[in-house]
Amino acid sequence: MILNNLANKKILLASQSPRRHELLKGIDIEFDIIAAGGIDEIFPENIPINDVPIFLAKEKAKAFANFIQENTILITADTIVKCKNNILNKPKDRNDAINMLKKLSGKKHKVITGVCISSINKNKCFKATSKVYFNKLTDREIEYYIDKYKPFDKAGSYGIQEWIGFIAIKKIKGSFYNVMGLPIQKLYKELQKF
Amino acid sequence: MILNNLANKKILLASQSPRRHELLKGIDIEFDIIAAGGIDEIFPENIPINDVPIFLAKEKAKAFANFIQENTILITADTIVKCKNNILNKPKDRNDAINMLKKLSGKKHKVITGVCISSINKNKCFKATSKVYFNKLTDREIEYYIDKYKPFDKAGSYGIQEWIGFIAIKKIKGSFYNVMGLPIQKLYKELQKF
Repeated sequence: MILNNLANKKILLASQSPRRHELLKGIDIEFDIIAAGGIDEIFPENIPINDVPIFLAKEKAKAFANFIQENTILITADTIVKCKNNILNKPKDRNDAINMLKKLSGKKHKVITGVCISSINKNKCFKATSKVYFNKLTDREIEYYIDKYKPFDKAGSYGIQEWIGFIAIKKIKGSFYNVMGLPIQKLYKELQKF
Repeated sequence: MILNNLANKKILLASQSPRRHELLKGIDIEFDIIAAGGIDEIFPENIPINDVPIFLAKEKAKAFANFIQENTILITADTIVKCKNNILNKPKDRNDAINMLKKLSGKKHKVITGVCISSINKNKCFKATSKVYFNKLTDREIEYYIDKYKPFDKAGSYGIQEWIGFIAIKKIKGSFYNVMGLPIQKLYKELQKF
Protein backbone atom coordinates (compact mmCIF):
# COMPACT_ATOMS: atom_id res chain seq x y z
CA MET A 1 0.00 0.00 0.00
CA ILE A 2 1.47 3.31 -1.06
CA LEU A 3 -1.13 5.49 0.68
CA ASN A 4 0.54 5.36 4.11
CA ASN A 5 -2.01 7.69 5.66
CA LEU A 6 -4.64 4.95 5.19
CA ALA A 7 -2.61 2.18 6.83
CA ASN A 8 -4.78 1.96 9.96
CA LYS A 9 -8.06 2.84 8.29
CA LYS A 10 -10.88 0.53 7.32
CA ILE A 11 -12.08 1.61 3.90
CA LEU A 12 -15.65 0.89 2.83
CA LEU A 13 -16.95 1.26 -0.72
CA ALA A 14 -20.74 1.52 -0.79
CA SER A 15 -21.43 0.47 -4.37
CA GLN A 16 -22.80 -2.54 -6.14
CA SER A 17 -21.00 -1.68 -9.37
CA PRO A 18 -18.40 -4.29 -10.33
CA ARG A 19 -16.63 -1.55 -12.33
CA ARG A 20 -16.18 0.57 -9.20
CA HIS A 21 -14.87 -2.45 -7.27
CA GLU A 22 -12.34 -3.10 -10.02
CA LEU A 23 -11.23 0.54 -10.19
CA LEU A 24 -10.70 0.87 -6.44
CA LYS A 25 -8.78 -2.43 -6.42
CA GLY A 26 -6.63 -0.93 -9.17
CA ILE A 27 -5.00 1.60 -6.83
CA ASP A 28 -3.76 -1.25 -4.59
CA ILE A 29 -5.69 -0.47 -1.43
CA GLU A 30 -7.65 -2.86 0.73
CA PHE A 31 -11.34 -2.22 1.23
CA ASP A 32 -14.66 -3.86 1.94
CA ILE A 33 -17.81 -3.53 -0.11
CA ILE A 34 -21.20 -2.57 1.29
CA ALA A 35 -23.54 -3.88 -1.35
CA ALA A 36 -26.82 -4.13 0.49
CA GLY A 37 -29.27 -1.29 0.89
CA GLY A 38 -28.91 2.00 -0.89
CA ILE A 39 -31.15 4.91 -1.74
CA ASP A 40 -33.85 5.78 -4.21
CA GLU A 41 -31.97 8.01 -6.61
CA ILE A 42 -34.29 10.99 -6.22
CA PHE A 43 -33.17 14.63 -6.25
CA PRO A 44 -34.88 18.03 -6.02
CA GLU A 45 -36.00 19.34 -9.40
CA ASN A 46 -34.37 22.70 -8.82
CA ILE A 47 -30.73 21.58 -8.58
CA PRO A 48 -28.60 21.92 -11.72
CA ILE A 49 -28.00 18.62 -13.53
CA ASN A 50 -24.23 18.96 -13.06
CA ASP A 51 -24.74 18.94 -9.27
CA VAL A 52 -26.96 15.84 -9.19
CA PRO A 53 -24.10 13.29 -8.88
CA ILE A 54 -22.59 15.03 -5.84
CA PHE A 55 -26.06 15.44 -4.32
CA LEU A 56 -26.73 11.71 -4.71
CA ALA A 57 -23.24 10.72 -3.50
CA LYS A 58 -23.95 12.77 -0.35
CA GLU A 59 -27.35 11.11 0.07
CA LYS A 60 -25.66 7.73 -0.19
CA ALA A 61 -23.11 8.81 2.44
CA LYS A 62 -26.00 9.69 4.76
CA ALA A 63 -27.76 6.39 4.06
CA PHE A 64 -24.62 4.42 5.00
CA ALA A 65 -23.56 6.72 7.86
CA ASN A 66 -24.19 4.01 10.49
CA PHE A 67 -21.31 2.00 9.01
CA ILE A 68 -18.85 4.76 9.91
CA GLN A 69 -16.90 4.01 13.08
CA GLU A 70 -13.64 5.42 14.30
CA ASN A 71 -10.95 4.82 11.62
CA THR A 72 -13.54 4.07 8.94
CA ILE A 73 -13.44 5.83 5.60
CA LEU A 74 -16.62 5.49 3.56
CA ILE A 75 -16.61 6.06 -0.20
CA THR A 76 -19.88 6.72 -2.03
CA ALA A 77 -20.37 7.74 -5.65
CA ASP A 78 -22.97 8.44 -8.27
CA THR A 79 -22.52 8.65 -12.03
CA ILE A 80 -24.87 10.25 -14.54
CA VAL A 81 -24.90 10.46 -18.32
CA LYS A 82 -25.95 13.92 -19.47
CA CYS A 83 -27.05 14.34 -23.07
CA LYS A 84 -28.53 17.61 -24.35
CA ASN A 85 -29.33 18.73 -20.80
CA ASN A 86 -31.17 15.52 -19.97
CA ILE A 87 -30.08 12.76 -17.63
CA LEU A 88 -29.99 9.28 -19.11
CA ASN A 89 -30.52 6.83 -16.25
CA LYS A 90 -30.33 3.06 -16.22
CA PRO A 91 -32.72 1.81 -18.92
CA LYS A 92 -36.07 0.39 -17.85
CA ASP A 93 -36.18 -2.23 -20.59
CA ARG A 94 -34.88 -3.14 -24.06
CA ASN A 95 -36.82 -0.38 -25.82
CA ASP A 96 -35.65 2.24 -23.37
CA ALA A 97 -32.05 1.10 -23.94
CA ILE A 98 -32.51 1.27 -27.73
CA ASN A 99 -33.87 4.81 -27.45
CA MET A 100 -31.00 5.95 -25.23
CA LEU A 101 -28.37 4.61 -27.61
CA LYS A 102 -30.17 6.29 -30.51
CA LYS A 103 -29.89 9.55 -28.58
CA LEU A 104 -26.15 9.04 -27.98
CA SER A 105 -25.43 7.91 -31.57
CA GLY A 106 -23.37 10.41 -33.57
CA LYS A 107 -23.25 12.88 -30.67
CA LYS A 108 -21.15 14.12 -27.79
CA HIS A 109 -22.35 13.63 -24.21
CA LYS A 110 -20.97 14.13 -20.72
CA VAL A 111 -20.40 11.63 -17.94
CA ILE A 112 -20.33 13.19 -14.49
CA THR A 113 -19.43 11.33 -11.31
CA GLY A 114 -19.84 12.73 -7.82
CA VAL A 115 -17.78 11.14 -5.04
CA CYS A 116 -17.91 11.57 -1.26
CA ILE A 117 -15.24 10.44 1.17
CA SER A 118 -16.62 10.40 4.71
CA SER A 119 -15.19 9.64 8.13
CA ILE A 120 -16.56 10.12 11.63
CA ASN A 121 -15.45 13.77 11.76
CA LYS A 122 -15.01 15.04 8.20
CA ASN A 123 -15.99 14.58 4.62
CA LYS A 124 -14.77 15.61 1.19
CA CYS A 125 -16.96 15.61 -1.91
CA PHE A 126 -15.86 16.27 -5.49
CA LYS A 127 -16.94 15.59 -9.03
CA ALA A 128 -15.33 14.80 -12.37
CA THR A 129 -16.65 15.36 -15.88
CA SER A 130 -15.61 13.54 -19.05
CA LYS A 131 -16.81 14.23 -22.58
CA VAL A 132 -17.53 11.20 -24.75
CA TYR A 133 -17.84 11.35 -28.55
CA PHE A 134 -19.95 8.60 -30.11
CA ASN A 135 -19.76 7.59 -33.74
CA LYS A 136 -23.04 7.07 -35.58
CA LEU A 137 -24.48 3.65 -34.72
CA THR A 138 -26.67 1.55 -37.00
CA ASP A 139 -29.89 0.02 -35.64
CA ARG A 140 -28.25 -3.36 -36.11
CA GLU A 141 -25.26 -2.36 -33.99
CA ILE A 142 -27.53 -0.98 -31.25
CA GLU A 143 -29.66 -4.13 -31.11
CA TYR A 144 -26.63 -6.43 -31.31
CA TYR A 145 -25.08 -4.67 -28.33
CA ILE A 146 -28.20 -4.60 -26.17
CA ASP A 147 -29.13 -8.22 -26.85
CA LYS A 148 -25.62 -9.54 -26.32
CA TYR A 149 -24.36 -7.30 -23.50
CA LYS A 150 -27.61 -6.43 -21.69
CA PRO A 151 -26.51 -3.02 -20.33
CA PHE A 152 -29.52 -2.69 -18.02
CA ASP A 153 -27.41 -1.84 -14.96
CA LYS A 154 -25.64 1.00 -16.74
CA ALA A 155 -26.52 4.71 -16.85
CA GLY A 156 -26.99 5.68 -20.51
CA SER A 157 -27.29 1.97 -21.49
CA TYR A 158 -23.63 1.48 -22.32
CA GLY A 159 -20.32 0.41 -20.84
CA ILE A 160 -17.22 2.05 -22.32
CA GLN A 161 -15.26 -1.10 -21.46
CA GLU A 162 -17.55 -3.30 -23.59
CA TRP A 163 -17.99 -3.93 -27.32
CA ILE A 164 -19.84 -0.66 -27.89
CA GLY A 165 -17.03 1.30 -26.24
CA PHE A 166 -14.61 -0.39 -28.65
CA ILE A 167 -16.52 0.13 -31.89
CA ALA A 168 -18.40 3.39 -31.30
CA ILE A 169 -16.40 5.79 -29.13
CA LYS A 170 -14.22 7.96 -31.35
CA LYS A 171 -12.57 9.86 -28.54
CA ILE A 172 -12.96 11.15 -25.03
CA LYS A 173 -11.80 14.28 -23.27
CA GLY A 174 -11.22 13.71 -19.58
CA SER A 175 -10.80 10.64 -17.41
CA PHE A 176 -11.65 7.28 -19.03
CA TYR A 177 -12.15 5.67 -15.64
CA ASN A 178 -14.67 8.34 -14.73
CA VAL A 179 -16.74 7.10 -17.68
CA MET A 180 -16.50 3.61 -16.17
CA GLY A 181 -17.95 5.02 -12.93
CA LEU A 182 -15.16 6.32 -10.70
CA PRO A 183 -12.63 9.14 -11.33
CA ILE A 184 -9.93 7.05 -9.75
CA GLN A 185 -7.00 9.46 -10.21
CA LYS A 186 -8.89 12.24 -8.40
CA LEU A 187 -10.02 9.80 -5.73
CA TYR A 188 -6.41 8.67 -5.16
CA LYS A 189 -5.31 12.30 -4.76
CA GLU A 190 -8.16 13.06 -2.36
CA LEU A 191 -7.52 9.93 -0.30
CA GLN A 192 -3.86 10.92 -0.07
CA LYS A 193 -4.86 14.28 1.42
CA PHE A 194 -7.78 13.03 3.55
CA MET B 1 -20.02 -11.45 -35.85
CA ILE B 2 -21.44 -8.11 -36.95
CA LEU B 3 -18.82 -7.43 -39.62
CA ASN B 4 -20.50 -9.52 -42.35
CA ASN B 5 -17.91 -8.60 -44.94
CA LEU B 6 -15.33 -10.57 -42.95
CA ALA B 7 -17.41 -13.75 -42.65
CA ASN B 8 -15.27 -15.80 -45.05
CA LYS B 9 -11.98 -14.18 -44.20
CA LYS B 10 -9.18 -15.50 -42.05
CA ILE B 11 -7.95 -12.67 -39.90
CA LEU B 12 -4.40 -12.67 -38.58
CA LEU B 13 -3.06 -10.31 -35.94
CA ALA B 14 0.73 -10.11 -36.00
CA SER B 15 1.42 -8.88 -32.50
CA GLN B 16 2.76 -10.30 -29.28
CA SER B 17 0.98 -7.67 -27.18
CA PRO B 18 -1.68 -9.19 -24.89
CA ARG B 19 -3.39 -5.75 -24.89
CA ARG B 20 -3.80 -5.87 -28.68
CA HIS B 21 -5.16 -9.42 -28.48
CA GLU B 22 -7.70 -8.30 -25.88
CA LEU B 23 -8.74 -5.23 -27.88
CA LEU B 24 -9.27 -7.15 -31.11
CA LYS B 25 -11.26 -9.79 -29.21
CA GLY B 26 -13.38 -6.96 -27.86
CA ILE B 27 -14.97 -6.24 -31.25
CA ASP B 28 -16.27 -9.82 -31.40
CA ILE B 29 -14.33 -11.10 -34.39
CA GLU B 30 -12.44 -14.34 -34.73
CA PHE B 31 -8.75 -14.18 -35.48
CA ASP B 32 -5.46 -15.98 -35.09
CA ILE B 33 -2.29 -14.56 -33.63
CA ILE B 34 1.11 -14.67 -35.28
CA ALA B 35 3.43 -14.25 -32.37
CA ALA B 36 6.70 -15.57 -33.72
CA GLY B 37 9.21 -13.52 -35.68
CA GLY B 38 8.90 -9.81 -36.17
CA ILE B 39 11.21 -7.02 -37.16
CA ASP B 40 13.92 -4.89 -35.67
CA GLU B 41 12.10 -1.66 -35.06
CA ILE B 42 14.49 0.49 -37.09
CA PHE B 43 13.43 3.46 -39.21
CA PRO B 44 15.20 6.02 -41.39
CA GLU B 45 16.36 9.08 -39.44
CA ASN B 46 14.79 11.49 -41.87
CA ILE B 47 11.14 10.50 -41.43
CA PRO B 48 9.03 12.65 -39.10
CA ILE B 49 8.38 11.06 -35.71
CA ASN B 50 4.61 11.12 -36.31
CA ASP B 51 5.09 8.87 -39.37
CA VAL B 52 7.26 6.28 -37.60
CA PRO B 53 4.36 4.09 -36.36
CA ILE B 54 2.86 3.72 -39.85
CA PHE B 55 6.33 3.10 -41.30
CA LEU B 56 6.92 0.30 -38.79
CA ALA B 57 3.42 -1.14 -39.20
CA LYS B 58 4.14 -1.36 -42.96
CA GLU B 59 7.51 -2.99 -42.30
CA LYS B 60 5.77 -5.55 -40.09
CA ALA B 61 3.22 -6.18 -42.88
CA LYS B 62 6.10 -6.88 -45.27
CA ALA B 63 7.80 -9.17 -42.76
CA PHE B 64 4.63 -11.26 -42.38
CA ALA B 65 3.60 -11.07 -46.07
CA ASN B 66 4.17 -14.82 -46.57
CA PHE B 67 1.25 -15.52 -44.20
CA ILE B 68 -1.16 -13.76 -46.59
CA GLN B 69 -3.13 -16.18 -48.71
CA GLU B 70 -6.39 -15.74 -50.55
CA ASN B 71 -9.04 -14.58 -48.05
CA THR B 72 -6.45 -13.67 -45.42
CA ILE B 73 -6.51 -10.28 -43.75
CA LEU B 74 -3.33 -9.39 -41.89
CA ILE B 75 -3.31 -6.72 -39.18
CA THR B 76 -0.03 -5.17 -38.06
CA ALA B 77 0.49 -2.23 -35.72
CA ASP B 78 3.13 -0.17 -34.01
CA THR B 79 2.70 2.21 -31.09
CA ILE B 80 5.10 4.94 -29.99
CA VAL B 81 5.15 7.33 -27.05
CA LYS B 82 6.27 10.79 -28.13
CA CYS B 83 7.40 13.23 -25.46
CA LYS B 84 8.96 16.60 -26.34
CA ASN B 85 9.74 15.40 -29.88
CA ASN B 86 11.51 12.28 -28.64
CA ILE B 87 10.37 8.69 -28.93
CA LEU B 88 10.24 6.74 -25.69
CA ASN B 89 10.71 3.08 -26.56
CA LYS B 90 10.46 0.02 -24.37
CA PRO B 91 12.85 0.55 -21.44
CA LYS B 92 16.17 -1.27 -21.45
CA ASP B 93 16.21 -1.78 -17.69
CA ARG B 94 14.93 -0.47 -14.35
CA ASN B 95 16.94 2.76 -14.54
CA ASP B 96 15.80 3.46 -18.07
CA ALA B 97 12.18 2.94 -16.95
CA ILE B 98 12.67 5.30 -13.99
CA ASN B 99 14.10 7.96 -16.29
CA MET B 100 11.21 7.63 -18.76
CA LEU B 101 8.57 8.00 -16.07
CA LYS B 102 10.43 11.04 -14.71
CA LYS B 103 10.20 12.53 -18.19
CA LEU B 104 6.44 11.85 -18.39
CA SER B 105 5.72 13.04 -14.82
CA GLY B 106 3.69 16.25 -14.69
CA LYS B 107 3.61 16.56 -18.49
CA LYS B 108 1.53 15.91 -21.57
CA HIS B 109 2.69 13.40 -24.17
CA LYS B 110 1.32 11.77 -27.29
CA VAL B 111 0.68 8.13 -28.07
CA ILE B 112 0.63 7.37 -31.78
CA THR B 113 -0.32 4.00 -33.25
CA GLY B 114 0.08 3.08 -36.90
CA VAL B 115 -2.03 0.19 -38.22
CA CYS B 116 -1.90 -1.66 -41.54
CA ILE B 117 -4.61 -3.97 -42.86
CA SER B 118 -3.25 -6.10 -45.68
CA SER B 119 -4.71 -8.70 -48.03
CA ILE B 120 -3.37 -10.38 -51.16
CA ASN B 121 -4.41 -7.50 -53.40
CA LYS B 122 -4.81 -4.39 -51.25
CA ASN B 123 -3.81 -2.67 -48.08
CA LYS B 124 -4.98 0.20 -45.93
CA CYS B 125 -2.78 1.99 -43.39
CA PHE B 126 -3.85 4.64 -40.91
CA LYS B 127 -2.77 6.15 -37.62
CA ALA B 128 -4.36 7.52 -34.47
CA THR B 129 -3.01 10.01 -31.95
CA SER B 130 -4.06 10.41 -28.30
CA LYS B 131 -2.84 13.03 -25.86
CA VAL B 132 -2.15 11.84 -22.31
CA TYR B 133 -1.82 14.19 -19.33
CA PHE B 134 0.25 12.85 -16.44
CA ASN B 135 0.06 14.15 -12.93
CA LYS B 136 3.33 14.76 -11.10
CA LEU B 137 4.71 11.46 -9.78
CA THR B 138 6.88 11.07 -6.70
CA ASP B 139 10.05 8.97 -6.88
CA ARG B 140 8.38 6.54 -4.50
CA GLU B 141 5.38 6.15 -6.84
CA ILE B 142 7.65 5.62 -9.85
CA GLU B 143 9.72 2.96 -8.09
CA TYR B 144 6.66 1.27 -6.62
CA TYR B 145 5.13 0.97 -10.08
CA ILE B 146 8.24 -0.29 -11.84
CA ASP B 147 9.11 -2.84 -9.15
CA LYS B 148 5.57 -4.16 -8.82
CA TYR B 149 4.32 -3.99 -12.43
CA LYS B 150 7.60 -4.38 -14.37
CA PRO B 151 6.53 -2.42 -17.48
CA PHE B 152 9.53 -3.57 -19.53
CA ASP B 153 7.42 -4.64 -22.51
CA LYS B 154 5.72 -1.26 -22.77
CA ALA B 155 6.66 1.79 -24.83
CA GLY B 156 7.18 4.72 -22.46
CA SER B 157 7.41 2.29 -19.49
CA TYR B 158 3.74 2.44 -18.54
CA GLY B 159 0.40 0.76 -19.14
CA ILE B 160 -2.65 3.01 -18.91
CA GLN B 161 -4.69 -0.01 -17.78
CA GLU B 162 -2.42 -0.57 -14.75
CA TRP B 163 -1.96 1.10 -11.36
CA ILE B 164 -0.06 4.03 -12.82
CA GLY B 165 -2.84 4.72 -15.31
CA PHE B 166 -5.28 4.80 -12.37
CA ILE B 167 -3.32 7.09 -10.06
CA ALA B 168 -1.40 9.35 -12.43
CA ILE B 169 -3.37 10.05 -15.60
CA LYS B 170 -5.48 13.15 -15.10
CA LYS B 171 -7.12 13.07 -18.50
CA ILE B 172 -6.71 12.03 -22.08
CA LYS B 173 -7.82 13.55 -25.35
CA GLY B 174 -8.46 10.95 -28.01
CA SER B 175 -8.93 7.19 -27.97
CA PHE B 176 -8.14 5.42 -24.68
CA TYR B 177 -7.70 2.10 -26.48
CA ASN B 178 -5.13 3.69 -28.76
CA VAL B 179 -3.06 4.39 -25.64
CA MET B 180 -3.37 0.66 -24.82
CA GLY B 181 -1.93 -0.12 -28.25
CA LEU B 182 -4.70 -0.31 -30.84
CA PRO B 183 -7.17 2.39 -32.01
CA ILE B 184 -9.92 -0.19 -32.07
CA GLN B 185 -12.80 2.05 -33.14
CA LYS B 186 -10.89 3.23 -36.21
CA LEU B 187 -9.81 -0.34 -36.94
CA TYR B 188 -13.44 -1.55 -36.75
CA LYS B 189 -14.47 1.19 -39.22
CA GLU B 190 -11.63 0.35 -41.59
CA LEU B 191 -12.32 -3.39 -41.43
CA GLN B 192 -15.98 -2.65 -42.22
CA LYS B 193 -14.92 -0.83 -45.40
CA PHE B 194 -12.03 -3.14 -46.36
